[in-house]
Amino acid sequence: MTFLALDILKYGVTLSMVGAVLGLLFAFLLIKAVIRLSAGNDRMRQIAGAVEEGAKAYLKRQVVTISVIAAVIFVLLFIFRDKFTAIGFVIGAFCSLVAGYIGMRIAVLANTRTAQAASQSRSAAMRVAFNGGAVTGLLVVGLALLSVGIFYTLANRWIGHDLAVKSLVGLALGASLISVFARLGGGIYTKAADVGADLVGKIESNLEEDDPRNPATIADNVGDNVGDCAGMAADVFETYAVSLIGAILVGALTLGNYPAAVVYPFVLGGISVLGAVLGILFVNIARGKPATVLMGAVGASALVSAILYWPATHMLFPNAVNIGGIDRSANDLYFASLVGLLMTGIVVVITNYYTSTRYAPVRKIAKASETGHATNIIAGLAIGQHATALPVGFIGIAILLSFHFAGLYGIAISVMSMLSMAGIIISLDAFGPITDNAGGIAVMSQLPKEIRAITDELDAVGNTMKAVTKGYAIASAGLAALVLFGSYVEELKAHFNASGKAYSFQFSLTEPKVIIGLFIGGLLPFIFTAFSMDAVGKAAGAVVREVRRQLTAKPGILRGEDTPDYGTCVDIVTKAALREMIVPALLPVLFVLVVAMIKSLGPVVLGGLLVGTIVTGLFVAIAMTSSGGAWDNAKKYIEEGNLGGKGSFAHAASVTGDTVGDPYKDTAGPAINPMIKVVNIVAILIIPIFF
Amino acid sequence: MTFLALDILKYGVTLSMVGAVLGLLFAFLLIKAVIRLSAGNDRMRQIAGAVEEGAKAYLKRQVVTISVIAAVIFVLLFIFRDKFTAIGFVIGAFCSLVAGYIGMRIAVLANTRTAQAASQSRSAAMRVAFNGGAVTGLLVVGLALLSVGIFYTLANRWIGHDLAVKSLVGLALGASLISVFARLGGGIYTKAADVGADLVGKIESNLEEDDPRNPATIADNVGDNVGDCAGMAADVFETYAVSLIGAILVGALTLGNYPAAVVYPFVLGGISVLGAVLGILFVNIARGKPATVLMGAVGASALVSAILYWPATHMLFPNAVNIGGIDRSANDLYFASLVGLLMTGIVVVITNYYTSTRYAPVRKIAKASETGHATNIIAGLAIGQHATALPVGFIGIAILLSFHFAGLYGIAISVMSMLSMAGIIISLDAFGPITDNAGGIAVMSQLPKEIRAITDELDAVGNTMKAVTKGYAIASAGLAALVLFGSYVEELKAHFNASGKAYSFQFSLTEPKVIIGLFIGGLLPFIFTAFSMDAVGKAAGAVVREVRRQLTAKPGILRGEDTPDYGTCVDIVTKAALREMIVPALLPVLFVLVVAMIKSLGPVVLGGLLVGTIVTGLFVAIAMTSSGGAWDNAKKYIEEGNLGGKGSFAHAASVTGDTVGDPYKDTAGPAINPMIKVVNIVAILIIPIFF
Repeated sequence: MTFLALDILKYGVTLSMVGAVLGLLFAFLLIKAVIRLSAGNDRMRQIAGAVEEGAKAYLKRQVVTISVIAAVIFVLLFIFRDKFTAIGFVIGAFCSLVAGYIGMRIAVLANTRTAQAASQSRSAAMRVAFNGGAVTGLLVVGLALLSVGIFYTLANRWIGHDLAVKSLVGLALGASLISVFARLGGGIYTKAADVGADLVGKIESNLEEDDPRNPATIADNVGDNVGDCAGMAADVFETYAVSLIGAILVGALTLGNYPAAVVYPFVLGGISVLGAVLGILFVNIARGKPATVLMGAVGASALVSAILYWPATHMLFPNAVNIGGIDRSANDLYFASLVGLLMTGIVVVITNYYTSTRYAPVRKIAKASETGHATNIIAGLAIGQHATALPVGFIGIAILLSFHFAGLYGIAISVMSMLSMAGIIISLDAFGPITDNAGGIAVMSQLPKEIRAITDELDAVGNTMKAVTKGYAIASAGLAALVLFGSYVEELKAHFNASGKAYSFQFSLTEPKVIIGLFIGGLLPFIFTAFSMDAVGKAAGAVVREVRRQLTAKPGILRGEDTPDYGTCVDIVTKAALREMIVPALLPVLFVLVVAMIKSLGPVVLGGLLVGTIVTGLFVAIAMTSSGGAWDNAKKYIEEGNLGGKGSFAHAASVTGDTVGDPYKDTAGPAINPMIKVVNIVAILIIPIFF
Repeated sequence: MTFLALDILKYGVTLSMVGAVLGLLFAFLLIKAVIRLSAGNDRMRQIAGAVEEGAKAYLKRQVVTISVIAAVIFVLLFIFRDKFTAIGFVIGAFCSLVAGYIGMRIAVLANTRTAQAASQSRSAAMRVAFNGGAVTGLLVVGLALLSVGIFYTLANRWIGHDLAVKSLVGLALGASLISVFARLGGGIYTKAADVGADLVGKIESNLEEDDPRNPATIADNVGDNVGDCAGMAADVFETYAVSLIGAILVGALTLGNYPAAVVYPFVLGGISVLGAVLGILFVNIARGKPATVLMGAVGASALVSAILYWPATHMLFPNAVNIGGIDRSANDLYFASLVGLLMTGIVVVITNYYTSTRYAPVRKIAKASETGHATNIIAGLAIGQHATALPVGFIGIAILLSFHFAGLYGIAISVMSMLSMAGIIISLDAFGPITDNAGGIAVMSQLPKEIRAITDELDAVGNTMKAVTKGYAIASAGLAALVLFGSYVEELKAHFNASGKAYSFQFSLTEPKVIIGLFIGGLLPFIFTAFSMDAVGKAAGAVVREVRRQLTAKPGILRGEDTPDYGTCVDIVTKAALREMIVPALLPVLFVLVVAMIKSLGPVVLGGLLVGTIVTGLFVAIAMTSSGGAWDNAKKYIEEGNLGGKGSFAHAASVTGDTVGDPYKDTAGPAINPMIKVVNIVAILIIPIFF
C-alpha cells in the first residue's frame, strides 16, 4: 500500500491527465458516431448551415472583442504581477474560448441529426441529443484537467512549486473573466434574439415559434448555440478549472507540508472522468422515460466516483494529516469528497422539483396564469424565491460537514468532487438547447408535426435539465468562491508576513468596514443582473426594429411570397450583444479595483465585499434561474393541453412569464456564477499590488 | 453653560416628553381643522361610512388575532425573562396597535374631505390630505416618545437603570412584532382586495377603477386604509420606538459612565417634533407644485432640527466622551446626528428620482410597456435592482462617517436623528393613500371628472411620496438593525462575563459558522417575501371567486340595475388576510429560535444570521418598493396621455406591471423593515435563555 501511495503521489497529476485524455478519446468516438448519422434532407442542411454560419460569425467577433480586453489585462498582469501569471491568464482565457467554440460546433452538428433521428423514434432523438451534449461535457472537463495539469507541471519544473501555484491564479482569472464575457455576450445574444423574435413574430404577427417567415428566426436559433451551448461550455470549463485551482491553492497555502494535498484534487477529477464515461454509456444502453434515464446516469456516475475515491484517498494519505491543529485520517478526507457528490445529487433533485412540469411549483404558475399576466409573474417570482431555501440550506450543511472533516481544505475537496461530476452534468445541460434547436430545424424545414411533438417533449425535459445544471453550477460556484475567499485571507496573511507588516485583520462582523464590504459586495449581483437585463432589453429592441422594418418593407414575407433577410438580424444582434456585454462584465473587476484603491477602505472592506457578493449572488442566481425555468415549463405545461392549452388566455399569460424568465435564466442568473469568482480571483491577484 | 448642561441632563427625558405633548396638541388642532371641513354630500358620507365600517371591523378582528399571539409571547417572556420585559412587550404591542388604529381613523376622516376640497381647488385638496397625514405623523412620533419615555422613567425609578434598559427590549419586541403583523395583515388585505378587484373588474368586466358596480370596490378602499394607513403607522411607530431604544441600549451598554448618552436620543427626538410642526406649517402656507412644496417642508424641518441639535449636544456633553478609546467632543456627536439628517434628505431625493413620473426610470418602464407585458416587467425589475445601488452606497458612507465620529454610539445617534424626521416624513406618506381614497370616493359618488383629475394628479405625487418614505423606512431600519446587532454582541459579552463563561466570539468571516449564519439570515428576506406574495395571491384568489360569483348570480350588477354585496367581499378578504399573515409573520421568530436551540450552531451562527438578514433584507426591500412605485407611476404616466394613453396596448402592459408591483411595494417589501428588527430583538432577548 505504501509503495502504491508513493507512486500515486508522484504520478497523480499525470494519471489524472491520462484520465482526461481517455475521456477525450471517448468524446472523439462519440463525435464520430454522431457525425455518421444522417444530417437530414437538403432543406435541413441548408438551415443548419445558416445557423452554423451565424454562430461562427458571432463567436469570431466575440473572440476579437474579448481579445482586445484580454490583451490589456495581459499587459497589466505582466507589469504589475509576473510573466507566469500573465501567461496563465492567456492560457485560461484561450481554453475558455476554445471550450465555448467546441460546445457550439458540436451542438450544431447534433441539432440537425437530432431532428432527423426524431423521425425514427423518441429514444433515438434523445440519444443523439444526449451524445452531442456528452461530447461537450467530456471535452470541457478534459480541457480543464489538461490545461491546469500541464501548466502546473511545467511551471512547477521551471519556477518551483510556490510560484507555480501563485501563477495558477492567473489561469483562473483568464478562465473566469472570459467566461463572464461568454456567458453575458452569448446570453444577451440568445435572449435578445428570442425576445425580439417573439415580440414581433408571435405577438404582433401571430407567427408560430421558428416560423421561417420571421426574419429573426435564424438569429434565434444561432442564439441557442452561442448562448446555451458556447456560453455554458465556457462557464463550466471555468467553474471546473477554478474549483481545481482553488483546491490546489488551499492545499498549498494551508497544508504546505503535505504534497498529497495538491495532488488529491487532480486525482478526484481524473477518476470522475471514468464515472462520466460510464454514465454516458448507461444512457446509450438504458431504456425508459428520458428524465428517468438521464437522472439514472447521474446516479451511476456518482456511484462509480464514490467507489473509486476510497482507495485513491487512502493511497494518497496513508498517514494522518494535521489540519487546523487536528489530525485527520484518510477517511475524513474521503467523507469530505462524498459531501460534494451528495450535494450534486441533492441540488439536482431540488432544482428538478422546482422546475419540472411534474411537480407543484410549475403547475402553480400555470394555474396562476388563468387569472392573467400579473398573477403569472407574481407566482413565478415567488417560486424563484422559495427555491432558494433548500439549496442554500444544504450548502450550509455541506460547509459545516466538509469543514468538520477537514477544515477549509475539506470545503475545497467537496467543491472539487462536486465539480468532478461536470462531465455527466453538462451532457444533460447541452441536451436542452440541442433538442430546442432540433425542434426549430424541424419547423423551419416543414417536417411532419409528429417530429416537432417529439422534440417538444424532449425540450421540456431539456428545460428542466438546463435549470438543474444551473442550480448545480451556482451551488458549486458559491462553494468554490468561499474557497477562494479563504485563499484571499491566507494570501493576505502570507503577503503581510513576507513584507514584514503586522497582520491583524479579523474580518469581524462587529467592524463597520466588514459590514460596508458586505453591503458593497451584496450590491454587485443586484446591479450586475440589472445591467444584464437592460442589455437584453436594448439588444431585443434593436431586433424588434429590424424585424418590423423588414415586414413593412416587404409585405410579401408574411404571405410566404418573399424571403426575409435573416443575415441582417444576425448581424444586428451580434453587434448589440457584443456592445452591451462590456459594461456588466467589467463591473465586478471595477468594484474590486475601486475598493482596493481607496486607502480608507482597504483589505477588510474588500474581504467583506467578497463574502457579500457570494451571499447575495447565491440567492439572486438561484431565484432567477429557478423562476426562469419554472416559467418556461409552466408555458410548456399549458401547451401540452392543460388549463386551456395553446391560444387560451392562460397561455398568453404564460408566454409573458416565459419572456420575463428568458433574461432571468439565460443571461443574468447564470452569469452571476463566473462573476462571483472573478471578484474573488481579482482580489487575490491585487493583494501584492495595493496592500 | 455648565448649569444648563446639568439641567438638560436631569430633565432631558422629561423635556422630550413635553415636546411630544406639544406635538400631540398641534395634531389635535389639525384634527379639529380637518373635521371642521365639509365631508361632502350624502352619497360621499355613505361611502366613507362603509369604508370606515369595513376598516374598523378588520382592525377589530386583527386585534383579536394578534392579541392571542401576544398573550402567548407575554407568558413566555414572563416565565423565561422577567415581568418588566413582559410588561414592556405589552406596552409596545398596545401602542403599535393604537398607532395603526389612529392612522386609519384619521385617514378615513381626511379621505372624504379631500374629495370634497378637490371640488374647490388642487391646493385645498392637497392641504387637507397633507394635514390628515400630518396628524398621523405627529401622533405616531408623540406616542413613541411618550411610551418609551414614560416606561423608561418609571422602570428607572422602580427597578434601577440597568434593568430598566433591559426591559425596554421587551417594548421594542412588542412594537416590532405587532408591526410585522400589522404590515403583513394590512398589506395582504389591501393588495388582495386591489388585485382581486382589478383582475375581475378591470380586466374581465372592463370596469374603471373604483366603479361602484364592482363588488370588491369597497374592500379595495378599506384596504388603502388598513394597509397603507394603519399598517404604515404601526410600522413607523415601531421604527421610531426601536431606534430610540436601540440608541438607549447602545448608550447604556458601551457608555455606562456617561448618563448623557441615554438622554441624548430622547432630546434629539423632542427637538425634531418642533421641526416637524414647523414643516407642517410650511406646507399650509407655501404655494407651488405639490411635489416641490412637500419636499420643501422636509428641508425646512431638517434645517430646524440641525440648528437646534447644536446647542443641545453641547449642553449635554460639555466635556469629551471616551468612545472606543478615543475622546470625542460634542461636535463629533453633533456631526453624527447631522449624518442622520443628511441621510434622510439623500434617501428622499434618490427614491424620488427612481419613482417619480418626471425622471428617466419611470419613463423607461412606460416606454418598455409599448412592446408588451413582458418588457414592462423586465424593465421594472431591472429599475428596482438599479435603485438599490445609491441608497446602499450612502448607507455605507453613513456608517463609515458616524462610526468615525463616535463608534457604534455614533451610528445609533445618526439613526435616531434620521428617525426624528418621521413626523414630517409620515405626513408625506399618509398623503398618498388619503388622496387615493379621495379619488375612489369621488368616482363612487359620481362626482364630476375634474375632481378625479385633481385627485389623480395628487395620487401620482402620493405614489412617489409613499415610495420615498418606504426608502426612508428601510434605510433607517437597516441602520437601526445594525445598532441592534451591535447590542446583541454587547449583551452576549455582558451575559458571558456575568455568568462566568469565557467569551471568545470573533464573528469572523473566516469562520464557517459565520458564513452559514449569513446564508440562513440572507435567506429570510427571500422566503419571507415569497410567503407574503403567496399570501396576497391566495387572498386575491378568494376575492376573485367571490366577485365572479356575485356577477354571475346577479347579472344586473354590471348593468347598474342591481347593487353588489360589498360586505361579503370585505368579510372574505378580512378573514383571508388574517389567516395568511400568521406564517410569514412568525418566520423570523422561528428562524432565530431554531438556530438558537441547535447546540452546534449557537451564538456565532445567530450573529451571522442577524447580519445576513440585514444585508439581503436591505436589497430586497429597496428593490421591491422601488420597482413597485415605479411600475405604479409608469401606469400613471401613460394614463396622463403619454405613449398612447388609457386603453392603449402600452397601458394594458403597464397595468400588469402595476399589479405585480402591488404586493411588492405594499405587502412584501415594506414588511421586511420591521422583520429585520424583530430578528435582532428576539436574538437579544433569548441570550440569557439559550446561551
